Order: sequence, then C-alpha cells, then structure tokens
Amino acid sequence: MMQDTSRLAIHTITTKPWPIEEAIDRYAQAGVKGISVWRDALDDRNAAKIGERIRSAGLSIVATVRGGFFPALSEGERQARIDDNKAFIHLSAELGSPLLVIVPGAHPGQSLAESRLQIRKGIEAILKEAETSGVRLAIEPLHPMYSDTRSAIVTLEQANDLCRELEHPLLGVAIDVYHLWWDPNLPREIERSGNGNKIFAFHVCDWKSPTTDFLNDRGLMGEGCIDIPGIRREVEKNGFSGFIEVEIFSTRYWSMDQQEFLGKIVEAYQKHV
Amino acid sequence: MMQDTSRLAIHTITTKPWPIEEAIDRYAQAGVKGISVWRDALDDRNAAKIGERIRSAGLSIVATVRGGFFPALSEGERQARIDDNKAFIHLSAELGSPLLVIVPGAHPGQSLAESRLQIRKGIEAILKEAETSGVRLAIEPLHPMYSDTRSAIVTLEQANDLCRELEHPLLGVAIDVYHLWWDPNLPREIERSGNGNKIFAFHVCDWKSPTTDFLNDRGLMGEGCIDIPGIRREVEKNGFSGFIEVEIFSTRYWSMDQQEFLGKIVEAYQKHV
Repeated sequence: MMQDTSRLAIHTITTKPWPIEEAIDRYAQAGVKGISVWRDALDDRNAAKIGERIRSAGLSIVATVRGGFFPALSEGERQARIDDNKAFIHLSAELGSPLLVIVPGAHPGQSLAESRLQIRKGIEAILKEAETSGVRLAIEPLHPMYSDTRSAIVTLEQANDLCRELEHPLLGVAIDVYHLWWDPNLPREIERSGNGNKIFAFHVCDWKSPTTDFLNDRGLMGEGCIDIPGIRREVEKNGFSGFIEVEIFSTRYWSMDQQEFLGKIVEAYQKHV
Repeated sequence: MMQDTSRLAIHTITTKPWPIEEAIDRYAQAGVKGISVWRDALDDRNAAKIGERIRSAGLSIVATVRGGFFPALSEGERQARIDDNKAFIHLSAELGSPLLVIVPGAHPGQSLAESRLQIRKGIEAILKEAETSGVRLAIEPLHPMYSDTRSAIVTLEQANDLCRELEHPLLGVAIDVYHLWWDPNLPREIERSGNGNKIFAFHVCDWKSPTTDFLNDRGLMGEGCIDIPGIRREVEKNGFSGFIEVEIFSTRYWSMDQQEFLGKIVEAYQKHV
C-alpha cells in the first residue's frame, strides 16, 4: 500500500521556476501538506502575507532555508553574516516559520578548524534572537564534497557535538540523506540526535550514479543509490515524526514542466521514501 | 629553505600521456626518486624488464596501483575480481613493487553494508597471495563522493577498523589527502594507523575551489585548500617516513606539455608539501 501524503513537504527551491504563490497553489492541489520556504522565494514580498496565504491553502510552514554561512576571512564580514542571520530569524517569525535551517559555511582561505570555531561563535551569537522570536535552528551537516566553501560541518557526529557544546533547547539538527548516506557512523549518530530530541528536520532526494554536477544534479527519490527508507526508519525509531521534506536541486528537473515534475515528486515520495 | 626531492614519488597516471619508459627517464632527470606504477602503464610490457629499467634509472618502485574493487552483484563476478587481484599481486612481485594499493570498491545496486562485507571477504581472499609474493596491501579510503561506485570505505576510521579485524602484518592503509582532508577525526585516526604501524603510503594533490569534475579536476599541491603540510606532519609524527606520492588526475594538466607539468610538480612539492 502506498503511503498518503500527509507528511510530504517540498522546498520551494525544488520547483524553482515557480513563483512562491504558484508553488503554494500547486502543492496544495497535489496533496502536499508542507512547504519549506527558501529566502529568495520571499524577495519583494511581504513575509506575513505569504505566511497567511500558505496557511489559507492548508499547508504547514515547515522551515525557512537557509541561514548560516558564518565563516569569513574578516571580522567585519563575519559580523555582517551574523546580522544577516538575525534578520532572517525575524523574517522567519514574520512568515510564521517555526524553524530556520543553518548551513554552517566554510572558507577555502582558512583552516577547517578555524571555520568550525567561527560557526560555533556565529550560532552562539544568534541564539538569543532565536529565543526572542521563538524560531528553532537546525544545523545541517553537508556532504564532505562541500568542505571548501559551504560547510566545515560534514558529519552528523560534528553537528551533534556542536549541539552538546552549545546546549540550547532551540538548537538541533537537520538530517539530509543526500549529505549523510555514505557515513558508516550514521545510525549511531541518529540515535544520539534522537536521545537529545534534536532531530528537527529530515530532507530527502537521491544520489544519482553517476552524478555529473557538484550542485545541481540531485535525483528524485528512487532514482539513485541512497537507502532512503532505511534512513527514514532510523530517524523515526529515534523519535522523529515531522514532515519529510523533498529538497532537490536539479538543472534537469528545473528545465521540465514543473507540474509534471510535481507529479513525479508525489509518486516518488509514495513509492521510495 | 626548500626541501630536496629525495622523498618525492610520482604516480604514472599523473603524467598519463607519457608511456612508462618516458616517464621513468623524465622523472629521473628531474630528481624524482620514486615511481608508483598504474596497471595500464604495464600494458603490453614485460613487468620484470620494466622493473629493471626503473631501478637502473635510480628510481624506487613505491607501489602498484590499483587493486581492489571487490563489490559486485554476482558471486561469479566477485570471484573474478578476487582472481584479478591475485594476478595483479603476481604482476607487482614481478615488477618488484613492495606494495599494492587497494581501492575497495562499491556498487550502487546494493547496500553499503553489503559492499563493506564483500570488501572484507575480498581482502581476506587475497592475503595468502600477498604473503606468498611478499607484496604488502594498502587499503585506500576514498572521498565520500565516490561511495556509489568506487568505495564503501570512505574514512580512515573504517580502514583502520578493517585492518584491526583482519590483523595481518602485510595489511595497512594508504592516506591520500584529497580523500581525507575534510574529516574532523583525521588526526585521531592517523594516530591509530601509526600505532599499528599501518601507514603504508601517503598521497598528495590538492582540492581546487571550485572543483568542476568529480574525477579529473584535482589540483597541484598549493593550488587548493588542503592543509597538506599539516597532514604530512601528522603522518610523520606517527611514524611514516616513506615516499610522498604525487597522484593527480587532471584533464587540464594532461592536456599541457608534460615536461612543463613535471617541472610544476617538483616546484609544488618543494613549496607546498
């Protein structure tokens, strides 16, 4: 029996060609129940009104995406990033998003150790804002192939360690199968996240074999070699019962008819998640 | 002061356009002291004679590259891979190579756990041959971006664990900075490798930012963001004093004059390793 779509959410970036208003309507018509909103989707919009529109369509706002990117070579730039994250927390609250996904960041001009320190300081610097706004923060470890410019946090172990160090009820992790499927320690670390009630988000797509682009060649679930149902069982065994978010960057899919692509997403979710 | 080239070795694949005879002569003229021989470089040659030629030129044979690739969907294919590895061990002995680098392998049509099991069984199945031939085997963990088809072993921790499980004096690890630089547990695991006297090989190149191809866009040392001297310090602190092998796959460098490229390799080795 195929599962229903009551826990299916989609990231606006997945259907990038659609303006958010169209994404909202189309997702709702297709039986999708949640939406995660990328910041660019809010450009030139009133976030509060977009939030109302999402809720009126019967969709839940799962998260805003993506804050973070704390490492930078100069103190001034690092402060600018922190300020920008605070602004995004406010925007998230206006929209009505309960969660902001944090992509940690990295800079090839400095050591990973230095970037990691700056990430910790950056998160510390915005926790107060998160409290005031009531927005939770999810640290998303990225795949190690993004260690140069996108994330010095590349394993769930590191994200868990950071959560332990900063110990804050509003700070947890986002588990994305694309970034973490290769990790032999993943089951152990999912259990650790679960024990701390830190699994704030669960993202799915697939790793195509071969993958031809570092960024924009992600696959639909079932199209690649990730054991998505297996990882889903692990996160659910460890207490996660939230939305399952489909986040796909794909030049190929962005170039096709988005309504047809949406149909494929729903089908892939029902069969391969 | 720039270091001398007494510990510099190059993989034949690095200067792929050169037949091995030319590579031997050019490396020797440039002051390179070691060569690691890829299997394709021996095509249609008598390995024993190539071995003599290498030694006559004053070069040491550091390793043959690359065995492994044990996972496969059928029992017959897995046996064929094992047989092929045994043949390569013999060929290595004929050449006079003391070490065979093992790229573990993976198959997108089965789970990583299954591939890992097949890797262990494959290595077990060739250890006797390694003993008889006196050729050591170095398990090389590859970057997690190769988890689909090239290696289900993607961290030094896994390679160390496998060495502990199989516990054989001829079995150790190859540490390649390109594959492992991102790993927050790398210093700890280099120490573990060193404690068991398991650091059999050390490979260098660099991670360009951006990197545009999954396979053939590796950088010359100093051209990217890997802390090569830092990792070198770790492996030497933990007992490694062997050759430092330059292994670069690069469409860009292969298309340039190889003598000019060789000059760049020597310079990069002296300045950035």
